[in-house]
Amino acid sequence: MIHITFPDNSVREYPEGITPLAIAEGISRRLAEDVLAASVDGVTCELNTPINGDAKLQLLKWDDAEGRHAFWHTSSHLMAEAIEAVFPGTKFGIGPAIENGFYYDIDLGDDRVLTEADLKDIEQKMIELARTKADVVRREVSKQEALDYFTAKDDQYKLELIRDLPDGSITFYTQGNFTDLCRGPHLISTAPIKAVKLLSIAGAYWRGDEKRKQLTRIYGISFPKQKMLDEYLEMLEQAKLRDHRKLGKDLELFAFSSRVGQGLPLWLPRGTQLRERLENYLRKVQREYGYLQVITPHIGQKELYVTSGHYAKYGKDSFQPIHTPQEGEEFLLKPMNCPHHCEIYRVKPHSYKDLPLRFAEFGTVYRYEQSGELHGLTRVRGFTQDDAHLFCRPDQIKEEFCKVMDIIFRIFKALDFKDFIAQVSLRDPNNKEKYIGSDEVWEKAESAIIEAAKEKGLETTVELGEAAFYGPKLDFMVRDAFGRKWQLGTIQVDYNLPDRFELEYTGADNQKHRPVMIHRAPFGSMERFVAVLLEHTAGKLPLWLSPDQVCVMPISEKFNEYAKKVVAYLNNYDIRTLFDDRNEKIGKKIRDNELKKIPYLVIVGEKEAESQTISVRERGGIDKGTMSLSDFKDFIREETEKQLNAL
Amino acid sequence: MIHITFPDNSVREYPEGITPLAIAEGISRRLAEDVLAASVDGVTCELNTPINGDAKLQLLKWDDAEGRHAFWHTSSHLMAEAIEAVFPGTKFGIGPAIENGFYYDIDLGDDRVLTEADLKDIEQKMIELARTKADVVRREVSKQEALDYFTAKDDQYKLELIRDLPDGSITFYTQGNFTDLCRGPHLISTAPIKAVKLLSIAGAYWRGDEKRKQLTRIYGISFPKQKMLDEYLEMLEQAKLRDHRKLGKDLELFAFSSRVGQGLPLWLPRGTQLRERLENYLRKVQREYGYLQVITPHIGQKELYVTSGHYAKYGKDSFQPIHTPQEGEEFLLKPMNCPHHCEIYRVKPHSYKDLPLRFAEFGTVYRYEQSGELHGLTRVRGFTQDDAHLFCRPDQIKEEFCKVMDIIFRIFKALDFKDFIAQVSLRDPNNKEKYIGSDEVWEKAESAIIEAAKEKGLETTVELGEAAFYGPKLDFMVRDAFGRKWQLGTIQVDYNLPDRFELEYTGADNQKHRPVMIHRAPFGSMERFVAVLLEHTAGKLPLWLSPDQVCVMPISEKFNEYAKKVVAYLNNYDIRTLFDDRNEKIGKKIRDNELKKIPYLVIVGEKEAESQTISVRERGGIDKGTMSLSDFKDFIREETEKQLNAL
Repeated sequence: MIHITFPDNSVREYPEGITPLAIAEGISRRLAEDVLAASVDGVTCELNTPINGDAKLQLLKWDDAEGRHAFWHTSSHLMAEAIEAVFPGTKFGIGPAIENGFYYDIDLGDDRVLTEADLKDIEQKMIELARTKADVVRREVSKQEALDYFTAKDDQYKLELIRDLPDGSITFYTQGNFTDLCRGPHLISTAPIKAVKLLSIAGAYWRGDEKRKQLTRIYGISFPKQKMLDEYLEMLEQAKLRDHRKLGKDLELFAFSSRVGQGLPLWLPRGTQLRERLENYLRKVQREYGYLQVITPHIGQKELYVTSGHYAKYGKDSFQPIHTPQEGEEFLLKPMNCPHHCEIYRVKPHSYKDLPLRFAEFGTVYRYEQSGELHGLTRVRGFTQDDAHLFCRPDQIKEEFCKVMDIIFRIFKALDFKDFIAQVSLRDPNNKEKYIGSDEVWEKAESAIIEAAKEKGLETTVELGEAAFYGPKLDFMVRDAFGRKWQLGTIQVDYNLPDRFELEYTGADNQKHRPVMIHRAPFGSMERFVAVLLEHTAGKLPLWLSPDQVCVMPISEKFNEYAKKVVAYLNNYDIRTLFDDRNEKIGKKIRDNELKKIPYLVIVGEKEAESQTISVRERGGIDKGTMSLSDFKDFIREETEKQLNAL
Repeated sequence: MIHITFPDNSVREYPEGITPLAIAEGISRRLAEDVLAASVDGVTCELNTPINGDAKLQLLKWDDAEGRHAFWHTSSHLMAEAIEAVFPGTKFGIGPAIENGFYYDIDLGDDRVLTEADLKDIEQKMIELARTKADVVRREVSKQEALDYFTAKDDQYKLELIRDLPDGSITFYTQGNFTDLCRGPHLISTAPIKAVKLLSIAGAYWRGDEKRKQLTRIYGISFPKQKMLDEYLEMLEQAKLRDHRKLGKDLELFAFSSRVGQGLPLWLPRGTQLRERLENYLRKVQREYGYLQVITPHIGQKELYVTSGHYAKYGKDSFQPIHTPQEGEEFLLKPMNCPHHCEIYRVKPHSYKDLPLRFAEFGTVYRYEQSGELHGLTRVRGFTQDDAHLFCRPDQIKEEFCKVMDIIFRIFKALDFKDFIAQVSLRDPNNKEKYIGSDEVWEKAESAIIEAAKEKGLETTVELGEAAFYGPKLDFMVRDAFGRKWQLGTIQVDYNLPDRFELEYTGADNQKHRPVMIHRAPFGSMERFVAVLLEHTAGKLPLWLSPDQVCVMPISEKFNEYAKKVVAYLNNYDIRTLFDDRNEKIGKKIRDNELKKIPYLVIVGEKEAESQTISVRERGGIDKGTMSLSDFKDFIREETEKQLNAL
């Protein structure tokens, strides 16, 4: 008999050689149906793999990433089998599971291009094959056997892969008529694959080498239930609509220019308004908490970064140094604001009574990213941090952490992010020599962070060994309305820079002491935050934040004069009002302005012009009926005021 | 007889060989006393130079720069004579007149260092020598004679100068016992030099070559009346107090760090507040005029600047290009915002109805300056322009110019610059091929500017040939409270960039047309403007703009508690209030805070604490008496409000 330990630490006895599937069947019929793969002592394997000794077992289901991974990996083989059936003679590259679904890189021969109809055919064939409930059989093969098999099949890609593998490590997986070179693990049958959608086609160079042949990559996703696929496709559709890159264009918030350069956003007038409103809001909150705004240049001399230690890390993968006519003189584009803020701290001597000093800056920094990694506003080469550096005494760390958390809670809630968690990153207790600063200061800082988070009732996970070498930190993740997690703000303790810049204050004891530095950015960056905000709200920004609050649309040109008066009236009351005087049907005007997510659409026609009223339509198609201009003005101002007061 | 034409175009007859002095004597005794030199057919000469033919004559007095120049040049010789008398054996380098005074570079021998007392001795000797009313006599000498003279005198510097001169071009000037190699022109006597002050000593390499000997440079100034010297010295004293570099330090507005780099200002919290208030004010005014704020990155790809034409001009004396890991990829630190704004214009197509489009940005740009040319905030390597680019139809130029002038007048006046003039820079009509754009568009734009300036009643000078190759412009100069002129804002028409960026709009005729671009910056840059504002106001910023409006100072520690309440009360009403709780005598506190130019000082002691009042002292030492807290709060808020409403 062997002892199997379950995730809840319960232990049961089983005969040697029992399979995870048999164990699941012994627990419940339902579990046996849901289980997809197993983790035995931390290694994922098939459900029919015998267990020959005491082990820790986890039965992996759909909710486990490794369970889904096995499901999609088998789906990939199933797709290959279907492709071979539909397009005999196809050669196969690699076909892994990915975060959401799977792909296979295939070579259909030179003159064959896949169409939408082809994908449909493959999908249908996959479902047909899955319904045969074929077993997926794993088999260890010798290198020679493997080479012989794919030589017979004339598949040069597989042969190339096999040649790189050591003999004795090679396994084949077979379902139905299809055998693939594969390390697994897999489902033990194609039966659970009930719903399939092939999503897209892309070109992919064999082994990622652009000098080699371009294969056809087919992306797909599969589910154990049709309903799950339907929901997933609906979510994809929604995500597309919420894509901040699309919204940024529709709402005319930002743009990129190939001349200015990739990853360097141009903030258009509406986006600038949005950003300035967010910045001013944050400025206001930070002022209440005693922050002092500063402004520093976007470059710094080599000496600054030698002092801070950034210079040594500023490698070949960065923006390169800026030389000048003066020999030996060198500047760097600033990658962070902290060295500049340390120099501001040094402008004059400080007493313990002056601390904490909190220097805040909307500081634009530049960091080189590979062009392939750039993505809208979430991954850019230049971005503006809502940065601040707090210089405090060691005994002030906890209080400062609490205050920063207050700010973060307040602005997340104000901007309707209700769901957020945090990660505390501490030292690796077994590797203390990796970190600078004494045990005492680390322990103090770590417990200050944990206590502060506890006091504030923040849901946190604690990760040992995830701290930076210069101090522990707290990272915030928000979940958007769509359930996706985004890493945003950070609070980071730093013992390193105060040392490197030899920062000092005079203590009550009249001796010189070193302050502690706290880096913090609630939004992270204005770019990233605006992207997340757009995806969170699907572009439906709250009234106070909307670049345009109202759009006035005359039903026909006859009412342009009256409409103009309405626009002038509203703008006069600082209500940000657009005028759509295009010679278009009112239906088209409504559709176009709904696309721009303008909170209120005002329609004026004969009735309205005669009675000096307006018809109001709220975002989302809600008819607010006819109103007097003055009532509407009051309504908008009160709504805005209400929102601002709640911030 | 010869005909002499005077500046008023009147012509008189004189005998051939008459001197300017004789002509002046013939006009009036007073004139003969005041005249210092003469300009004959545009060439400055001595008053005793015979005029041998018809000529245009201008008699140069103190108010003429060339008159002062002759006066100071002779003063320089007089100083050399005095030095030779006080320190026999001194060798002389060069001794020119400069914009304000004169200097002489001298070699006193290796171990002699001049003291303040030495300067006094030299000054006294100069006055003594001047009182002898020695004639200054010009004499043409042969090269050999010149070499012989200075060989005898053993002055290697003069000998080196003479060796470089062609024979036949050499003149000596002698007064009293001193003879100098000199081109002139000079006064004809030392008599007018009535007041002298030697101002400072500096080291100066012979011929500016740091490999050669360092000579002692003595700077001095002289006047025809003691009263003028006294006034000048008083002005120097005042200028020192108004020096924005000193005020920037005293008021803790900005700082420089050798690590960050020369010419790269760090805006401290108070300076940032000041700057943000100015920017917000400008934002508000510009919003009223339909400007749209945008934000663009501080770098741009090579291609952007190849398109704009800046790349070709971005030479060895600039910040060098930024390379990246991607071969051939290059970015420049942005030297101007216009190329980025052109790209924003290109984001979407425009109709004639959309124009003018006015993109505004507080855009920080970087331009390399030699370290020797840097000066406080007026000459820096990174600065933030209050920039905007107006894209308009050709028929809108005049109206846009008028509107920009309205903005400039409004903000200059709001900030108490009442005295300003402008220069219109037009094409050189004889060199039209130097400029891009057709005759028609130039004529239209030039007359638009002139008419707009006229309509606005602006005092302008017109300079032909001073236009940029790409369009005419209007530059603003303000005169500060101290009478000094500062070049600030600019309005510049540009036909070039719209061409290079192929900007277009669809006209009423449904055809594509090219917009005209207008660059404009009322302040010029935030850095320069703040510097000028500080020098103009001597740091006494108006209440609305002062980073700190009030400072509360308890007479002794006993009243700290009450003082704290006062501070909290005022801050609660958004009155920016400091608390000076240092354990210092009240007299010192008052002096220190007056140095910081805080508008109102509030003093609290026993009497005030008992009666719950405060004693108020206005900037400049004006006693405002005792007030209730509430009255003072109302007073400050009303004053601020009044100022803001007047903006």
